[in-house]
Amino acid sequence: MKQIEGGVTAAKGFEAAATAAHIKYEDRDDMALIYSDTPCTAAGTFTSNVVKAAPVIWDRTLVEKQRKVRAVVVNSGIANACTGEEGLSCCRNTARAAAKALTIPEDQVAVCSTGIIGLPVPVDKIAAGLNVLAARKNTTKENATAAAAAIMTTDTHPKEAAVTFQVGNETMTLGGMSKGSGMIHPNMCTMLAFLTTDADLTQAALQAALSDVVSDTFNMISVDGDTSTNDTVLLLSNGTAGNPTIRGGTEAYDRFKEALFAVCECLARQMAADGEGAHALLSVTMTGCVDKAQAKLIARSVVSSSLVKTAVAGHDANWGRVLCAMGYAGADFDPEKVDLFFESDAGTIQILKDGKATGFNEDEATKILSEPEVTILADLKMGDATATAWGCDLTHDYISINADYRS
Amino acid sequence: MKQIEGGVTAAKGFEAAATAAHIKYEDRDDMALIYSDTPCTAAGTFTSNVVKAAPVIWDRTLVEKQRKVRAVVVNSGIANACTGEEGLSCCRNTARAAAKALTIPEDQVAVCSTGIIGLPVPVDKIAAGLNVLAARKNTTKENATAAAAAIMTTDTHPKEAAVTFQVGNETMTLGGMSKGSGMIHPNMCTMLAFLTTDADLTQAALQAALSDVVSDTFNMISVDGDTSTNDTVLLLSNGTAGNPTIRGGTEAYDRFKEALFAVCECLARQMAADGEGAHALLSVTMTGCVDKAQAKLIARSVVSSSLVKTAVAGHDANWGRVLCAMGYAGADFDPEKVDLFFESDAGTIQILKDGKATGFNEDEATKILSEPEVTILADLKMGDATATAWGCDLTHDYISINADYRS
Repeated sequence: MKQIEGGVTAAKGFEAAATAAHIKYEDRDDMALIYSDTPCTAAGTFTSNVVKAAPVIWDRTLVEKQRKVRAVVVNSGIANACTGEEGLSCCRNTARAAAKALTIPEDQVAVCSTGIIGLPVPVDKIAAGLNVLAARKNTTKENATAAAAAIMTTDTHPKEAAVTFQVGNETMTLGGMSKGSGMIHPNMCTMLAFLTTDADLTQAALQAALSDVVSDTFNMISVDGDTSTNDTVLLLSNGTAGNPTIRGGTEAYDRFKEALFAVCECLARQMAADGEGAHALLSVTMTGCVDKAQAKLIARSVVSSSLVKTAVAGHDANWGRVLCAMGYAGADFDPEKVDLFFESDAGTIQILKDGKATGFNEDEATKILSEPEVTILADLKMGDATATAWGCDLTHDYISINADYRS
Repeated sequence: MKQIEGGVTAAKGFEAAATAAHIKYEDRDDMALIYSDTPCTAAGTFTSNVVKAAPVIWDRTLVEKQRKVRAVVVNSGIANACTGEEGLSCCRNTARAAAKALTIPEDQVAVCSTGIIGLPVPVDKIAAGLNVLAARKNTTKENATAAAAAIMTTDTHPKEAAVTFQVGNETMTLGGMSKGSGMIHPNMCTMLAFLTTDADLTQAALQAALSDVVSDTFNMISVDGDTSTNDTVLLLSNGTAGNPTIRGGTEAYDRFKEALFAVCECLARQMAADGEGAHALLSVTMTGCVDKAQAKLIARSVVSSSLVKTAVAGHDANWGRVLCAMGYAGADFDPEKVDLFFESDAGTIQILKDGKATGFNEDEATKILSEPEVTILADLKMGDATATAWGCDLTHDYISINADYRS
């Protein structure tokens, strides 16, 4: 497996485009298109929120019915959530407009929205945008990046990742893009992500790989504990690589899953690092756990703690807050056994040994916590399981962004 | 039942005192004593955090063994949490010093600490402080308030409440004090609260009433989602009122529980309103719920949402975030049925009717959200159950307080 530059157009047969449809933002692109030359097998994971935005309902149906997908239409600015029947009719009309502009079947169009809750998407602007997107779409890296930028809301930069991987003599490619950066919390995290691959897989294998990988990557990031109404990850496989169809339980499947994990992990880390108001990426790793469920539960609890996040913002080695957040995660462990470390490019410092403070140097700890990526590592000494969660510090900028986002 | 002025000395036979023991704070009182002339029956509820501070372990044992209590010694500044065997030995030495200073049995002393995690309490300073407290204790309101002020950490003002209530011809009194104001989140919320009554109850009735009332009051407040290591509520009954001992399941028990609820609710609201950095008290009420568990789950989810809290800070009627937080609470409901209201002293505005936006006036909503107490009210139209949760807005001041608390 090799990391390469690029995003949703890295895999063969995929095109992308972006345009300014003026849906809410006035001075930037706010619509993106992902297009495949040939029909794709599609897998998806969606928000666990009881309140599901219309596009989530639309896309979930599409994936559940195992429909082929030719195009994904995404807009930012308005979420088309809490819009009832009108919201679903927006999705239908968007699909219709895309079908017309791209000359593809209407039931092969996925639709995603992100932005403010409570407003329907203005379909006339979407239809106009689609005509531009159809004319503009191509396979360039530039267009992929433009699409990644068009789906941003409070993100500060576009997020892309791509890898090539080998199965036997065949080289295949998987690329993707995603956006955050508020309402970010596991199950699904608040987010949109789009992944494209030229590898051919059965729908069952594609969905199984996606569900597994999402639970270890996108579902392990947290910005603010809010699980959005619109979370969607779509994975499209157009089979253009011409490989023998990959099924679950094979070595080829394992290679594919490794590639998928690499791209999703890379995007998840980018999203955490670009969390609203974030100045630092916070990684929390729990090792020595009884099982993965315990490791994930505790890692997520720490990465979600407002008090841990503000301590990181203040470069303050307030390890008591870390132990406290571990303690209320809902999983049992022995505090008297815990080894705790803070790590960054500036070094590693042991804070606790067998639950006791080591009497570390505060200045050294502050230096370690002042780096743009900070890792908190704890060893529970109960077993062999490990998990990592990603988040960010909690700063004044988060408040500034969110105390007046809608106006 | 009648609300009266006062705190832990309102009930007959209770004394209080405060002093500056210079444990961490240099220029304020940081030690408090509650003292009873006669041995008290004691009930308690404690943090659900796996990491329990030494005083929590100490006091829980005391309550579980149904020991009588004559004194509660509280310090602020240092939490005596994550201090292992040394921490428990601090508690033992504190009890010993209190026993000596007050001439009471050593096993009748409860000990509480709040503040920074990871340091043991300096017992020499505690012992010196206890000599002052023993000399200074009395039944005045002034001393009760001084004690309530001495236990504060980031609280901006002391919190007290008291009521008198009638059972037959007997008038009894219940008073209390508490402190917040960060690491505040249900089960137990992060907090210390001390309640004193001259009513006589069996230990079983006392504990049952406390457990019930705490789950509807202190456990329904959230400031930042962090459940602390030190949460403790202690309820002391010295029976000085001379009433026939109250048992569970009687009318007298119901009267007592009403009084307890009134005092705990009053303290809980004060704690939420004085949450770290809070400019507004946020009350969230769910009505029309299937059962109380559902109502509590959803109310707590909304009051804990960072995005709802920042919207209130910005006086922004971002109702989508409210519905979103309801949706990820973990309880099912039909979003298309929800009626949603914002309320304050400036008026009431209906935001959603049957899940649809009413097209409310934004200026009016902003005015309502600019009051010091804001209520969010939702009717799920599924049943008759109701619950209220209390919290506060999330402001720049929360970040300022917590990004540099330890140094």
